[in-house]
Parts: sequence; structure tokens; C-alpha cells
Amino acid sequence: MGSPNPRRTASGSGEDDVVELIREALEARLGAAAPEEFSLRDDAAVLPAPVLPSGAPLVASVDSVVEGVHVDPSVCSPGDIGWKALMGALSDLAAMGAAPLGALVALCVPGGAGEGTLALGVMRGVADAAAVSGCPVLGGDVSGASQLVVSVTVFGTVADGGPQEGGERCGPVPRSRARAGDVVLVTGPCGASAAGLRELRAGSADADGAGAHRRPVARLREGEVARRAGVHAMIDVSDGLALDLHRLADASAVGFRLDEVPVAPGATPDEALGGGEDYQLLLAADPGRVEALGAAFAAAGLRRPVRIGVLDPDPSVRLLRGEPLAPLGWQHRVG
Amino acid sequence: MGSPNPRRTASGSGEDDVVELIREALEARLGAAAPEEFSLRDDAAVLPAPVLPSGAPLVASVDSVVEGVHVDPSVCSPGDIGWKALMGALSDLAAMGAAPLGALVALCVPGGAGEGTLALGVMRGVADAAAVSGCPVLGGDVSGASQLVVSVTVFGTVADGGPQEGGERCGPVPRSRARAGDVVLVTGPCGASAAGLRELRAGSADADGAGAHRRPVARLREGEVARRAGVHAMIDVSDGLALDLHRLADASAVGFRLDEVPVAPGATPDEALGGGEDYQLLLAADPGRVEALGAAFAAAGLRRPVRIGVLDPDPSVRLLRGEPLAPLGWQHRVG
Repeated sequence: MGSPNPRRTASGSGEDDVVELIREALEARLGAAAPEEFSLRDDAAVLPAPVLPSGAPLVASVDSVVEGVHVDPSVCSPGDIGWKALMGALSDLAAMGAAPLGALVALCVPGGAGEGTLALGVMRGVADAAAVSGCPVLGGDVSGASQLVVSVTVFGTVADGGPQEGGERCGPVPRSRARAGDVVLVTGPCGASAAGLRELRAGSADADGAGAHRRPVARLREGEVARRAGVHAMIDVSDGLALDLHRLADASAVGFRLDEVPVAPGATPDEALGGGEDYQLLLAADPGRVEALGAAFAAAGLRRPVRIGVLDPDPSVRLLRGEPLAPLGWQHRVG
Repeated sequence: MGSPNPRRTASGSGEDDVVELIREALEARLGAAAPEEFSLRDDAAVLPAPVLPSGAPLVASVDSVVEGVHVDPSVCSPGDIGWKALMGALSDLAAMGAAPLGALVALCVPGGAGEGTLALGVMRGVADAAAVSGCPVLGGDVSGASQLVVSVTVFGTVADGGPQEGGERCGPVPRSRARAGDVVLVTGPCGASAAGLRELRAGSADADGAGAHRRPVARLREGEVARRAGVHAMIDVSDGLALDLHRLADASAVGFRLDEVPVAPGATPDEALGGGEDYQLLLAADPGRVEALGAAFAAAGLRRPVRIGVLDPDPSVRLLRGEPLAPLGWQHRVG
């Protein structure tokens, strides 16, 4: 990058040093994820061919975590912030039913003493999340900034995304193909992250929900199983079940009637509806295929999705137990 | 995203509104780059198969532009900042000899009145650069922040990256395969961006170099032609010719002896050596193939690369006209 204030530095100092530290930390945790020639030391990362199975689409998403906006540094460590940034991006792949191929990390770190330590702490959390998810970190970029920002881009694919036996495609699952009459399901109880945050702020450092808030897990396997089982539409609950279900309904031009929403232990019903960041998945499935969907989850060793309601042909119908359900949840304050 | 301070918003307000405005602006400039179902309205972007020619590797890079760190908002508009962010990332692909397939943009925008306008202004610049480069914007993310940060991830490929006639691979070009005795070339004169910045700061709003600073262009075609012509190593001059050549020499374990460096009109020799962000490419080529390299550039309608020196077997030799050349250039202040 050029700069309004070019500085002259000795070779091997500054940015290059931090990148080298990060590279070593990642390799220690992950092993070499790319051929040595390209391993975080080049202009760009290279995934050698064949990276995609024949006919498989490429799926990509980006997500940012901004300190003080998306994450409270008084209850989350730099490693937690790195973990959450990668998992947030991976959750978008999960919501398409895609499997990850790799991640790139853009790190902006505030100046002052300890910024190298901060960068390294964040990247160790990224590496932990990468190891758990089977998603290699292929490259990145480190910049100075007034505020810690971690932007993670992930890309993945749908290996078996070609035509299926039943004649239906089994490709990436959009938000927009839900149909009136579909059953709405969620992969698990909601509100654990919000409850954990509340407990942490109340001073319970070892609160039951601390892990759910600090180290949430993207539902990659659930997303793949749901896609293969032929769900019509899918979205991850990143901003709040109510808001994200409104988005799915908007995209599909349908309404919804919910009966109930499973509440995570320790969470309030409001936290389950508006808390977000649990990374559960919302599924819209043909009523005749719900039983097979549950069986597919069980066969994969996963919890059966919980039925929470049905989709309505009238897009203006947005009800929970017969009462209007507002799109509770988190939107980043822009505009 | 979850949040430490969940807010409750009406559907269609806030972030979703800004995203919709951005989507419209991009479509107006670029046309629909992805199938309608996935066009910036889904959890992740999808590039339908076949995205990669058989056997071709996937190449990816990320680059951030931070207001006040990499770019001076008193001389660059929001659109310029968006343009520079995409071009900076594309220049990394150019340095591998790769062609772009698509980009994802993570935008962090400071709060207050006009933040939606700022986001839109940045994205219009991104869209302009995308149109010029043939690189569709496939998705993105908008967040609040205390400082404008634009992180762009690009991915691309090397369509003809398989084995070539001469038996040599023609895949992505790393920094690290330069050999002692190779000729060092640069694709054009350097320092134009730094000179433009100096002129702009001196109050010449219509300075000759203003465009070079505000709207630099990644050398994608030059990178592809150089790769096909079999250059051994390549790096883009993003941080300064001297610093970037030191990096290439470090990665390849060689030294260099430069004769001269072409200086852009209006630029000083120091700006040519340390200014960066011109996005010229440095090439290391077999001496016996330099003539063919120039002919390949000419056949493609491109300026012939300029020979500036040779690589030395002793990695400690780093000379310009016989004098030691320090790694002048810009490193982001981290660590």
C-alpha cells in the first residue's frame, strides 16, 4: 500500500515481522495449509488444482467484527474476537449448505505498545476456530487503525451440488426459495450467546454461557445435511431469530406463524428471539419431508431440528402464538 | 452478527437499507453479476459452476484501506478510497499473473449523519474499479466503526496454468523463484502516485499526478503476459520499488545490482524508489528470454518492461549504481 505519510523502515521490521509471527503461529496450529512457496509469504494465496470438484460452484462470504461494535472487549479476549470473526463468516457458508475451502483475514490493529501481541492473540483465536472447522487460513493482511477490526472472507463449495436422484438440484441453499406451507425449523435452542454475555457482564467469569458467547460454533455439518435433505431455504441466526426469519420471509415473499421458539438454558425468551450469534440455522422444508430431514440429522449424529411454525402465503402475516412478532435483533447502525 | 448492545430495529431499516442501496448502485454500474437469487441478497455469494477451468488453481488475496493510515481523506473522495481498495487487492492477483473472478467487500463506516452516503460513495468507487477490471463484486458486509475501513478480498485463477510446451509450468508466479543472474525489469516508470499526492497536498487539485494517486490501475494484463512468457518471479510495487524488490530478493535468497529506475514524469527519484502504490510490476526473468518477454508485451499492445538491473548470487548485495539501496517504502506501523 502507498501512504499519505511514507515512512522509511529497515527490511524485516514492522509489518513484515508481524506477518512472519502470525505465519509461525498459524503453522504451529494448523500445519502448512498451502504449498511452501505460497504459504502466507506471497502476494496472494493459491489453492492448487483441483480445488473444486467438477461442476461444483464456488461459495464465498465476508464478515467483520469491530471491537466495541460487535464485541465487548471487557468480556472477550483477542483470541475470542478472532474466533468469532471466523465463525461468523463460516456460519454464512453453513447457511448455504457449503463446506469451507479456506479463509483470508484482514486485520486492522490499533497503534501503541502491544499491538503486535494483540494481532497475534487475534490470529491464535482465528487459528483455533480454523482447526475446529477444517478451514485453512490461506492468507491475510495487517494494517494499523484506530480500532480493532477483523474481517474474514471464507470460501467454500458444495461438492455434490449437481442434479440429484429425485430430479431436484442439491446446490447452495438460498434464503429465497421458501414456499407457503413449508415448515419452519431451527437446529437448536437460541439465546445462549446473549445469555452468556449478560452473565459475563454481571461478573460471572465462569458463567455457563461464557463459552457460548465467546466461542460460538458455526453449524457447518447441519447446513450440509439440511441441504442434502432438500430444504427449500435456509438462513443462519446471526442477528436474532426474529430478524433473520423476517429476512427469509422477505426474500421468499411469504409470511410466518410461529408456535414456539426453543430457549437455551439460562436464556430469556427475548434473548432467544433477538439475541443472535448462536449460529443456529433456520430451515424451511416441505411438510412431507420433515420426517426424513430429522432422520438425516439423526443418522449424521446431529440433534433433530425443532419445528417452530409454518410459512403463510400472506407476506404480511408475521406471528408468534398469534401475536405480531417484530423483527427483534441486531442491525449494525448504518444509515 | 450478535452484539454487546442489541438494538431493536424495524424490518428494512438500518443495515439492510444500506445494503439494498449498495446493491442497486452496483447493479446499475455492473449489471447483475450473479444469479438473481444470490445477487448480494444472500448469506454468501455463489459463482455457478464451472467457475474454474479444469485443473486451474484458485488464487485469492485481501487488502485493506484505512482512512488516515493508507489514504488521506483531504485529497481522496470516498469513491477514490473504494477504487484504491479494490485495485490494491487486484494488484496482488496481477503479481501472480492471475485473472480476477470476483470480489467481496467488507466496509466499516463511522457513525453520524451521512454514513449511508459515505458507504454508497465508497461502493461507487469500488464499482467503477470493478467495471474497469472486469471483476464483479459478488458480496459484502457493512458495519459501523470509528474509522472508515475498506477491506477487499479478490479471487481469481490462472486459466492456462497447466504444463506448457517448453515443459515449464505456467502457473501462478511467486516471489520466491527468482534466480541469480536473472534480469530485473519493471513494467513502467514509478513514483507517479507519490508525486500526485505531493501536488494535491500543495493545492493543485487538477495536478497532472492527481489521477495516478486517486485512481491507480492494477497491471492485470501485464501480469498475465509476464506469467505466460515464463518470468521466474514477480511482485507488485505497492509499498515502494526498493522495499518490494528487497522482499522479492529475500524470498528468493538472492541479491540485486540495479543500474537505474525509471522515474515517472513529475516524480523525484526518491518517490520512484519509495513511493509505492503505482502498481507497476517487478519481474525477474531469464536473461535469454528478456527479448521474447518484450515482444510478448508489444504483441499484447503493452509497453515493453524496462530492464533495471540483475540479481546477484550473494543475498547481501543490494545495490543501486554501486551504492547500498535501503528498503525505502511504506510499511504499515504494526509491532
